[in-house]
Amino acid sequence: MNLWTLGPAGTFSHEAAVNLFPTAKIHFAQNFESLFDAAEKSGNTGLIPIENSLHGAVDEVLDLLLRSEVKIWKTYDVAVRHAFGAKNPKKVKRIASHHQALSQCRDFLRKHYPHVELFPVSSTSYAIELALEDETVGAIAMKKTMLERKLPVINEDIQRDHNTTRFGLLARKNPFPKEKKEHMSVALIPTEDRAGLLHDLLTPFKIYDVNLSRIESRPTGEKFGSYCFFLDFAGTKESARIQKLFEEIGKVATIKILGEW
Amino acid sequence: MNLWTLGPAGTFSHEAAVNLFPTAKIHFAQNFESLFDAAEKSGNTGLIPIENSLHGAVDEVLDLLLRSEVKIWKTYDVAVRHAFGAKNPKKVKRIASHHQALSQCRDFLRKHYPHVELFPVSSTSYAIELALEDETVGAIAMKKTMLERKLPVINEDIQRDHNTTRFGLLARKNPFPKEKKEHMSVALIPTEDRAGLLHDLLTPFKIYDVNLSRIESRPTGEKFGSYCFFLDFAGTKESARIQKLFEEIGKVATIKILGEW
Repeated sequence: MNLWTLGPAGTFSHEAAVNLFPTAKIHFAQNFESLFDAAEKSGNTGLIPIENSLHGAVDEVLDLLLRSEVKIWKTYDVAVRHAFGAKNPKKVKRIASHHQALSQCRDFLRKHYPHVELFPVSSTSYAIELALEDETVGAIAMKKTMLERKLPVINEDIQRDHNTTRFGLLARKNPFPKEKKEHMSVALIPTEDRAGLLHDLLTPFKIYDVNLSRIESRPTGEKFGSYCFFLDFAGTKESARIQKLFEEIGKVATIKILGEW
Repeated sequence: MNLWTLGPAGTFSHEAAVNLFPTAKIHFAQNFESLFDAAEKSGNTGLIPIENSLHGAVDEVLDLLLRSEVKIWKTYDVAVRHAFGAKNPKKVKRIASHHQALSQCRDFLRKHYPHVELFPVSSTSYAIELALEDETVGAIAMKKTMLERKLPVINEDIQRDHNTTRFGLLARKNPFPKEKKEHMSVALIPTEDRAGLLHDLLTPFKIYDVNLSRIESRPTGEKFGSYCFFLDFAGTKESARIQKLFEEIGKVATIKILGEW
C-alpha cells in the first residue's frame, strides 16, 4: 500500500502511519493540501488527523474534505503523548512546537515554564532541530524522535489527560470493501439561510432516531453567520432509515458524504 | 484606557487596536492566555480576535472565555488585508506567516507559489523579520508593517474575498455602561450526554423566536462526542423572552454568559 502522511519524518502523523500500517510504503506530504492531492490519485491512500479529543476538528481538513473526491474509509484513535526536551533546560527562553502540541501541553507549560515564550513552528520535528541548534530553545515533540536525534528528554507525558487524535484513512475508492461499515461523516450545506435552520436540520435525526456523535459548524466564508455543518453518526447509506433521513434533510440542505467507516 | 492586545508590535491585532482606540495606552501580551490574565484585572481591557469570516472561531479564545471572569462588551469587524513581501521573490523557497494568514491566502499561494514550502510562525511580524534576514524566505503580513521595516512589498491584497475578523473588547466590568446592548454570547454546557440533546437545546430558540447568528461546537476534552456549544444571538438578558429561553435551556444545560454587546 502506498500511504501518504504529513511530513517531515518523526512527527506524530508519521509515527501513527508506521504503527498502524507497518507494511505500507510511506510517503511524506508537505501539507494537508498536497496530501489530499496525492490521495486522490487512483490506488493511493492518505492518513490524516481529523479530530482531537481536546481541540476538536482540524479545520483545514474539513475544508479539504468538502471539496475533495476522497473519502474517509476507516478511523483510528491514537493516544497523544508529548515529551519536553532541551539541551540545557535552565537556559530555555523559548519553547518550540506545533501550535496544537503547545496547546495540548498548556497545563505543563503554565506550571513549569510560565515566563517562557511559546514559539509555534510548522512541525514537532522541526522544533527538535531548533532545540538542537540553540540551547535557549526547548522542544515539545515525541520522546522517540528526541531519542533518535539525541536531544535530551527532560519530561515525559506532559500532555493533558484524555488526549486522543482521530486519524482518518483517505482514498478515492474503499480500500477495505469487505469490512462492515458502521458510521458516516457528512457535510450539510444549507440551501437557504434563515432562523431555526440548524434546528430543522437536526429534526430528522431525532425523528429517525439517528445518534449524532459529532457536530462541527464552519463558516461558509461568505459572511458572518452563514455556516455549513459537519456531522458524524451511526448508520450506513444502505439502511432504509438513513435513506429517509437524507430525503428529509435534502429538502433544506445539500448533503455531501465525506466518509463511510 | 489601558488596552492589552496580542503582540509583538506590527501584527494585525496591534493595527486593529491602534485604529479602533487611537487614544488608548496599548500594551502587548505574548499570548492569548496572558492577554486574558491582564484583562481580568480591574480597570483593564483587552482586544482579541474572536472569529474570522473564513475560518470560524479562534478555538483557544473560546476555551479561555469559558473559564475566565472577563466578558465581551463590544465587537468590531475588521477587514483583513495581507501583502506578500520578499527581498528577492525569485529566490523564495519558503513563505512564512501566522498559520491563519497562510490559510487566508491559500488561493494566491497555490497560483503563484505552488512549489514553495509554507512555514507557519508565531506572528506575521516575526515572518517579516525572517524575510529580512534571509532572501530565500518570503513573508505574508500587513503592507504597512513591511513598509515600516523596509521589506519590499511584492503583491497586495492577496487574501481571499470576504475576509473579515471580528474582534471582541474584553473586560471584567462593562466599560460602556451607557451603550445599548443588542447581542449575547453564551456557552451551553450540557448536564447530560444523550442522543438528540443539541436538537433539544435549540428548541427553545425556535419556540421563543430568538435568532442564532453563530453556533460553534467544541469538545469538552473528556471524550470524543462530548461537546459544549457556543452561541451568539440577538437579545439582552433583561428581556422577558430571553429570560424564558434561559429558563428552558437551564433544564438541560449550564449557561455561561460570555458577552453582552
